[in-house]
Amino acid sequence: MAQPKTSREDQLLEVATRLFKEKGYHNTSMQDIADGLGVQKASLYYYIESKEHLLRQLLRRAAAILGTQIDEIYEAELPPAEKLCQALQNHAVTMMEHLNLVSVYLSEYRNLPPRQREQILDTRKHYERVLIRILEDGIASGDFRPVNVKMTMLGLLGMFNWTHQWFSPDGELSPQEIAAILTDLAMRGLMAGPIA
Amino acid sequence: MAQPKTSREDQLLEVATRLFKEKGYHNTSMQDIADGLGVQKASLYYYIESKEHLLRQLLRRAAAILGTQIDEIYEAELPPAEKLCQALQNHAVTMMEHLNLVSVYLSEYRNLPPRQREQILDTRKHYERVLIRILEDGIASGDFRPVNVKMTMLGLLGMFNWTHQWFSPDGELSPQEIAAILTDLAMRGLMAGPIA
Repeated sequence: MAQPKTSREDQLLEVATRLFKEKGYHNTSMQDIADGLGVQKASLYYYIESKEHLLRQLLRRAAAILGTQIDEIYEAELPPAEKLCQALQNHAVTMMEHLNLVSVYLSEYRNLPPRQREQILDTRKHYERVLIRILEDGIASGDFRPVNVKMTMLGLLGMFNWTHQWFSPDGELSPQEIAAILTDLAMRGLMAGPIA
Repeated sequence: MAQPKTSREDQLLEVATRLFKEKGYHNTSMQDIADGLGVQKASLYYYIESKEHLLRQLLRRAAAILGTQIDEIYEAELPPAEKLCQALQNHAVTMMEHLNLVSVYLSEYRNLPPRQREQILDTRKHYERVLIRILEDGIASGDFRPVNVKMTMLGLLGMFNWTHQWFSPDGELSPQEIAAILTDLAMRGLMAGPIA
């Protein structure tokens, strides 16, 4: 899709995300980012204070993308199984559509200073708590088997988060198709009764 | 458990594994490793040629630990569902019992030179192919639903590999208990008929 209004700052974030993903945060220099953008290194400082500042912005962006959806789904008037299905489907598609960004989010947050690292970890914990509440609601309603909710939540997230290790936009299946296969596997593993 | 015969070389590999996990390969210097062992940096070169040589040894060790089990399970005279159950259980326990080593294996292989990186990737591909064959056998025998075997294999590996992000040896559950919960979720997601 054409994105005619990509600002210089968005371009900078995109190039930095790709480089942090490919080379790792520590192996990427401001010079690499300037080269990727085709500008002089000095001009980067018009947009950002430092490489760390750039990382902070990227991680905040990733946290926002993942975080807003889960709250909307939890508040919706839906049975727990439907909520979980939507949450997993959404999570998987987001992972694959923002592959580089989520990958940097998952692996490079430890390079932030303590306070910012805590903020990112708080966002992740909130996300996990909502998933656990959906699982608990589903067990209470009899839709799900009485599983260990914490382990199950971590297992499910793992199944979807791991896509950042293998998903390729050039592969045979779209993010939506892959998300559907994995969500089906997860839901069948959880449901109490036999599934048609 | 006491390990009375830990050689100096084993200690070196252990310290390096822990540091590579905690700080990342690139952020760990030979000086850090020497400090961790309580020796002079120069004496490290008695055991290893370079930091990269050390990484190579660690990754070969991790590949060997994961790789030998899967072939034995595949060759055993067992129904496919039982083979998969054992393979997943084993994979999960190995992940959690060799947490630092597997974590370095999964994240730092890209720091190897091309030829060694290819060797590691070949070992991983072999492992994945055996899991796919077990899934195919189980579908052919009617034990498993007719799922997309490649996506399912990647989903299952993800569920277990992700433990390296969250498992703590100080947590409430042992690796065996966590492996049993996750394996149960996976098997129920896969089985064709209702499970007792």
